[in-house]
Amino acid sequence: MPLITFQPSYKTIEVPSGTELLTAARLAGVEVDAPCGGKGTCGKCVVRITAGQVDASSSLGVLTQAAVAGGEVLACRTHIGTAPLSVAIPAVDGREGLRITGGDETALVRGELLPRPAEYEPLAFRWRLHVPPAQLDDGLSDLDRLTRSIQREWGQNPVFLPLSVLRTLASALRARQGELTATMIRADQEIHVIHLEPGNHVARLYGIAVDIGTTTIAVQLVDLTTSTILQTRSDYNEQVACGLDVISRINYARRPERLAELNTRVLRTVNRLVLEVAAAGQVAPHEICNAVISGNTTMLHLLLGLPPEQIRLEPYVPTLFYTPYLTAAEIGIQIHPESWIYCSPCVGSYVGGDITAGLLCTDLVTETEEINLFIDIGTNGELVLGNRDFLMTCACSAGPAFEGGGIECGMRAASGAIERVTVDPVTGLPLYATVGHTKPTGICGSGIIALLADLLRTGWIDPSGKLDRARPSPAIQVQGRHAVYILAPLAESGRDRPILISELDIENIIRAKAAIYAACALLLQHAGITFQELAHVYIGGGFGRYLDLEKAIIIGLLPDLPREKFHYIGNSSLLGSYMVLISQEYRRRQIAITRRMTYLDLSAEPAYMEQYTAALFLPHTDLKLFPSAHTIKA
Amino acid sequence: MPLITFQPSYKTIEVPSGTELLTAARLAGVEVDAPCGGKGTCGKCVVRITAGQVDASSSLGVLTQAAVAGGEVLACRTHIGTAPLSVAIPAVDGREGLRITGGDETALVRGELLPRPAEYEPLAFRWRLHVPPAQLDDGLSDLDRLTRSIQREWGQNPVFLPLSVLRTLASALRARQGELTATMIRADQEIHVIHLEPGNHVARLYGIAVDIGTTTIAVQLVDLTTSTILQTRSDYNEQVACGLDVISRINYARRPERLAELNTRVLRTVNRLVLEVAAAGQVAPHEICNAVISGNTTMLHLLLGLPPEQIRLEPYVPTLFYTPYLTAAEIGIQIHPESWIYCSPCVGSYVGGDITAGLLCTDLVTETEEINLFIDIGTNGELVLGNRDFLMTCACSAGPAFEGGGIECGMRAASGAIERVTVDPVTGLPLYATVGHTKPTGICGSGIIALLADLLRTGWIDPSGKLDRARPSPAIQVQGRHAVYILAPLAESGRDRPILISELDIENIIRAKAAIYAACALLLQHAGITFQELAHVYIGGGFGRYLDLEKAIIIGLLPDLPREKFHYIGNSSLLGSYMVLISQEYRRRQIAITRRMTYLDLSAEPAYMEQYTAALFLPHTDLKLFPSAHTIKA
Repeated sequence: MPLITFQPSYKTIEVPSGTELLTAARLAGVEVDAPCGGKGTCGKCVVRITAGQVDASSSLGVLTQAAVAGGEVLACRTHIGTAPLSVAIPAVDGREGLRITGGDETALVRGELLPRPAEYEPLAFRWRLHVPPAQLDDGLSDLDRLTRSIQREWGQNPVFLPLSVLRTLASALRARQGELTATMIRADQEIHVIHLEPGNHVARLYGIAVDIGTTTIAVQLVDLTTSTILQTRSDYNEQVACGLDVISRINYARRPERLAELNTRVLRTVNRLVLEVAAAGQVAPHEICNAVISGNTTMLHLLLGLPPEQIRLEPYVPTLFYTPYLTAAEIGIQIHPESWIYCSPCVGSYVGGDITAGLLCTDLVTETEEINLFIDIGTNGELVLGNRDFLMTCACSAGPAFEGGGIECGMRAASGAIERVTVDPVTGLPLYATVGHTKPTGICGSGIIALLADLLRTGWIDPSGKLDRARPSPAIQVQGRHAVYILAPLAESGRDRPILISELDIENIIRAKAAIYAACALLLQHAGITFQELAHVYIGGGFGRYLDLEKAIIIGLLPDLPREKFHYIGNSSLLGSYMVLISQEYRRRQIAITRRMTYLDLSAEPAYMEQYTAALFLPHTDLKLFPSAHTIKA
Repeated sequence: MPLITFQPSYKTIEVPSGTELLTAARLAGVEVDAPCGGKGTCGKCVVRITAGQVDASSSLGVLTQAAVAGGEVLACRTHIGTAPLSVAIPAVDGREGLRITGGDETALVRGELLPRPAEYEPLAFRWRLHVPPAQLDDGLSDLDRLTRSIQREWGQNPVFLPLSVLRTLASALRARQGELTATMIRADQEIHVIHLEPGNHVARLYGIAVDIGTTTIAVQLVDLTTSTILQTRSDYNEQVACGLDVISRINYARRPERLAELNTRVLRTVNRLVLEVAAAGQVAPHEICNAVISGNTTMLHLLLGLPPEQIRLEPYVPTLFYTPYLTAAEIGIQIHPESWIYCSPCVGSYVGGDITAGLLCTDLVTETEEINLFIDIGTNGELVLGNRDFLMTCACSAGPAFEGGGIECGMRAASGAIERVTVDPVTGLPLYATVGHTKPTGICGSGIIALLADLLRTGWIDPSGKLDRARPSPAIQVQGRHAVYILAPLAESGRDRPILISELDIENIIRAKAAIYAACALLLQHAGITFQELAHVYIGGGFGRYLDLEKAIIIGLLPDLPREKFHYIGNSSLLGSYMVLISQEYRRRQIAITRRMTYLDLSAEPAYMEQYTAALFLPHTDLKLFPSAHTIKA
């Protein structure tokens, strides 16, 4: 019976010739995904033969010729021959981390936190009205009759029509004998009629949820008649060219023409993504009648063209936390021009609408006695700690490393990004998977965390982040005082350069994780709580599709707690925006929670720097804080 | 002693040689204005020597060489010689009619109807605020602090800042340690902050009152800090090129691009006049922070770009009567872009904001038991009848004749317009005065009424408006079946044609006056009231600067009532707009009166046509209605 070795675990098994490779892996205790049940149709059980021969002809059709030439086969369609075989198994979706399933981020959130169908009450809605015909003697204008018809259904709230809608009113009322469809926005006690069409058009109404991150912007198209998420797209914030973090953006915005430039850049990114989701969802931009946008306080200011300078100057007081009623045309977002652009409220200069949106995805909004922690890891790290009795929040500057920013070959989780990686303990060589299974063009947040953790676990870097120069590995190249780790040499790379990570990159990543860990520690210290007292830790952020929890603990980004306490909730800012978009109740909840939060300014805390310095090691200078650090190693 | 004959009255007197001409006139009982007291400085006592010689050298300096060459002299500076003299006296300001004094129309309105200084409370106001500096720990944004500072002074009303003002907030708060000037609008329960400036700038704040007539647009610049009227300018509404009355405008506006054209034309006229008053008042357009606009319902719709079609289609129901809160930028008026444009509310399709503004200049807004009538004579005639217990209103189509429209040589009361005229009973020749004392270029409303009345009084036309062909006069030319009356032959004319009035013109004028008289009669009939029961008749309108009451009664435009019952209130729409601009109380009063009015649709009244036909004579087919018709003749 030939010996089969599986990498990266080096688990081995002997199985009879002719056994399916998928079966052999399962017998060896190696997980290989095969959601199609071994029919050879889904292509998920792809593995790479690194030594030995198999008959892979039946893999064709699902895999490309190039993939097959590179040694890839489908484990379910490959039978073992007579000779020994080495098989590399890519890290598997949903096994090594908490997964964001394709497109439906709602799956990440505890079901009871999501709006129930009974709570679907979008801020924008379409209603079929029958407005009685004009009369000679009643002294009522068209506007009076429309207003009465709306108030008969929706109560005696003031009804507003912008000039553009007033211009269509006379014909809309008369085209179908008063039968018409009104698109309305309910904002607090007011009703805004943003569109009128004769006849019945209630079937089509769309909204967008938008997360404006310092590094990445995500836009989600939602069918407001069913509250279904139709499309999600994300891309780098074009402002990245003007500075990687909020402080450099604020500095850049000092001159008015540069503030205007940043405003143009963010709008360009948002509008491009809106066009993409609209095209993919077969929706006209004009049919998108509401947007809920969440972003940090600086991003909100830049979106609105407000000078952000005071955010970085003592006493750090911005122009606003709550945004007034503004339309798409006023802000410059290319959906229906009269759409309400609702911006999630901010708590402080460094705790913004992304957090008040994200909290909607956690138990922190519920009436629980248990103390929970929410960590949103983006270019800034923001934290919220509390329960029904108190809510405390703070922010720290992590930098864009976890979104691929400020890292030589860093990129966001787009096609070609190395998103999962393991390191061979013997050779030091990496085994990676890229988004879209293409040649690697960079490494994204999840890949960076996995790489650092595996380099540490396998001893190829030390706790200070230095690569091992003593043990030779083809993956490590020493250049003078600095060393780099080659993920993909030029021949394998999808770019005109090798994909690598430098010791400088590693320092950046260590600083980023230290900033976040230190902020957690200090916030808990302020509340007089230990990590062990936390019931749940919710983690949101833009790591790409995964956060490998185990690996995040290995590098000391997250505290070493029982794993079941952690909940990765993905892009919670985007998901919270979606919740607000489809539910007035969630909007009220968001405002209520914003009002309840107390803001802790870390910059005013000398203890923060101590905590930060102590955390500038992998996982930490105080290994007692990471009791599983050694056991993981095995 | 030489005989002096004064025209047009043919009064004569003999005085010693050397007597001042002014003294001679007074002795003869001929009124000549001399406000400077005979010092030769004001130039108001100008008369024309039509026969005989005087020494006029001392008139030079005030009169032009050309005027002197044409026979004009100053009566106060001219001494009578030894030979007989014929002297033509122009009709005199303020004697023959109810005058609008130069620029200050408020003089026309009974003093107790004008806002008292204690009631000066403009819709827009400037306030000096001291906003406390930002604090690290209070959780208040710049907007929160500004809002609190305003609410501390002005109560717990919601405070709104548009995006453009939010963009200036951070710097405005910090430039002078929180001392700043806020320009605010109070609209109902809301405060809108439309401008912020560091420091103290409360001294300069301006508003405009605007009357948008079908034919003429008037704009008035007002200093809102003192409620003083600074400048008034008027001009034809550029829409005139697209139709002379509201019905033809409505027809023109049927195609969307033509509605847009009418909208552009009215804005162009308004904006040109705004620039003129601003330049004359040495005010930057940006310092004008509020506008109150009054116009008929069609004009309002065209200003806002609302399709007016339904105004002329049964059941005559327009898009709106009350205009929502709209800014200058939204409408397209070139003053401070965030200015509130308050439009006077309308009562019906044919009783608009010009009437609800005009009523503020009458006793109809007071708690009187006496029954009063308000007649606004423009291209449309609108009437309001009532007292504290009832208010009834109707409208009729007079056509633009009284504003110089649809009349061959008609023009508005601009430089060169014949505004006063008398007809020599013997020769039939006219004696006229023009606006600006230039050569005549046309005839305006007041001139038209005076001319018709004098032609009738002197027998040169008959009650059906036909010129006397039997008696030869150099002023009457018969061309086939038609005859024309020459006001100024080519040689005297300021244009390349003689200034004349045709029998067709006279028919137009008779139709216009008949429409108004018939509407008055029908409205009173509906209320069960006779003309004699009226306590006061208020007359507003765009006749130029005068309405010669006696002459308006002679032609049957106004009912034959004791003269002291009539009050000419000039452009009451403009004046009412001014009152609203400077007083919240007047705005409330205007809304209250608008709600109280009942609208009578004349087009649904067969009796109207009977009344109209009966009024198609000068003064009327039923001479019993005009008892003074014969006595006037002498």
